[in-house]
Amino acid sequence: MRARHKPWADDFLQEHKQYVELNPELNKEEWSTVFQSPQPIQLEIGAGKGQFITGMAKQNQRINFIAIELVKSIIVSAVQKVADEQLDNVKLINYDANDLREIFATNEIDCIYLNFSDPWPKARHAKRRLTYRTFLQQYQDILKPGGEIIFKTDNRGLFEYSLTSFSQYGMIIEEVTLDLHELNDPTNVMTEYEEKFSAKGQPIYRCRARFNGCIS
Amino acid sequence: MRARHKPWADDFLQEHKQYVELNPELNKEEWSTVFQSPQPIQLEIGAGKGQFITGMAKQNQRINFIAIELVKSIIVSAVQKVADEQLDNVKLINYDANDLREIFATNEIDCIYLNFSDPWPKARHAKRRLTYRTFLQQYQDILKPGGEIIFKTDNRGLFEYSLTSFSQYGMIIEEVTLDLHELNDPTNVMTEYEEKFSAKGQPIYRCRARFNGCIS
Repeated sequence: MRARHKPWADDFLQEHKQYVELNPELNKEEWSTVFQSPQPIQLEIGAGKGQFITGMAKQNQRINFIAIELVKSIIVSAVQKVADEQLDNVKLINYDANDLREIFATNEIDCIYLNFSDPWPKARHAKRRLTYRTFLQQYQDILKPGGEIIFKTDNRGLFEYSLTSFSQYGMIIEEVTLDLHELNDPTNVMTEYEEKFSAKGQPIYRCRARFNGCIS
Repeated sequence: MRARHKPWADDFLQEHKQYVELNPELNKEEWSTVFQSPQPIQLEIGAGKGQFITGMAKQNQRINFIAIELVKSIIVSAVQKVADEQLDNVKLINYDANDLREIFATNEIDCIYLNFSDPWPKARHAKRRLTYRTFLQQYQDILKPGGEIIFKTDNRGLFEYSLTSFSQYGMIIEEVTLDLHELNDPTNVMTEYEEKFSAKGQPIYRCRARFNGCIS
């Protein structure tokens, strides 16, 4: 996602500390104490402008949400949305998700959302895809036993790759949907991308997968 | 597949015993001796009019093929094709594939093809789908360790279901293709259905999956 440089972004994040964790690694093992209520924690990786996490947090008040976004000039839009709605069950993190184990402890997360992740279509960039096995290893480490990954994309190549990557890692694929919006799932919260691509008539793919050896 | 009743079908099959196994259960454990050359054996379940198995047998002379088709008035077309080409690496079976273990021994088959199987779209008919777990159990029993199922369909619901069924059974999904003909795979042999649906611009889905614990 391209975005203009926003020189005021640092100050903006500082001013919204209620919704932004500026030093997330300090919360490792302590995330349950960061929120107003100790509730299950769900994590979105790549939150973009925050439409998904905001919608999810409004729809699910009894879940706490953490959303990570790498690009500072984009996460400010997410922070604005969460602040506008005064959502006390969301924390945003501006962080390069290179190793999630720096900020989350074992079993700290209940569920991970990957929405419209960068497809990195070239084979030599496969390692950068958020469904590559080194990332799955991180997710497994921070997820509770039985925790799921819920993955949405409009990118066919990334979806095909991810199904095999999940399976070859030993995960169990619990649901596959090749045209999400035909399902009319009332609980589905659309991301900005999803709204755009779906309006063009492009199918949206979704998959739920869990790590083996655990019953969800 | 609907087909006119063909009162001459029994006689026709009898006259083509070279290509038809009339009592397949008698060959259990002995299939390697039935063919001219002892080669790996691949099995198609639901052969229809035989376009796939004929094309595969011509393309892969060093593999033996067995193709099962339930409907007598349809399998005669397959027999005709194989006889026309004088393919000595194909045997056809007119058989209701209720329990493949009646006709094949453990480890007797190298690979199974499921092409455009009946989708049985109603949930209460799920048990009849050829990718339901009771069928997977049969395939696992007759396949060699590391043997694969290669599954093609144009039916989205059946494909979504089958991916989860394979995975939940413990199989490893090795390849997923959501638009087979965009791949331009030169080794792909089209079935009659595939040709028809593909001409209409419908995507064809393909998946390769193997039973866990074996490296192919």
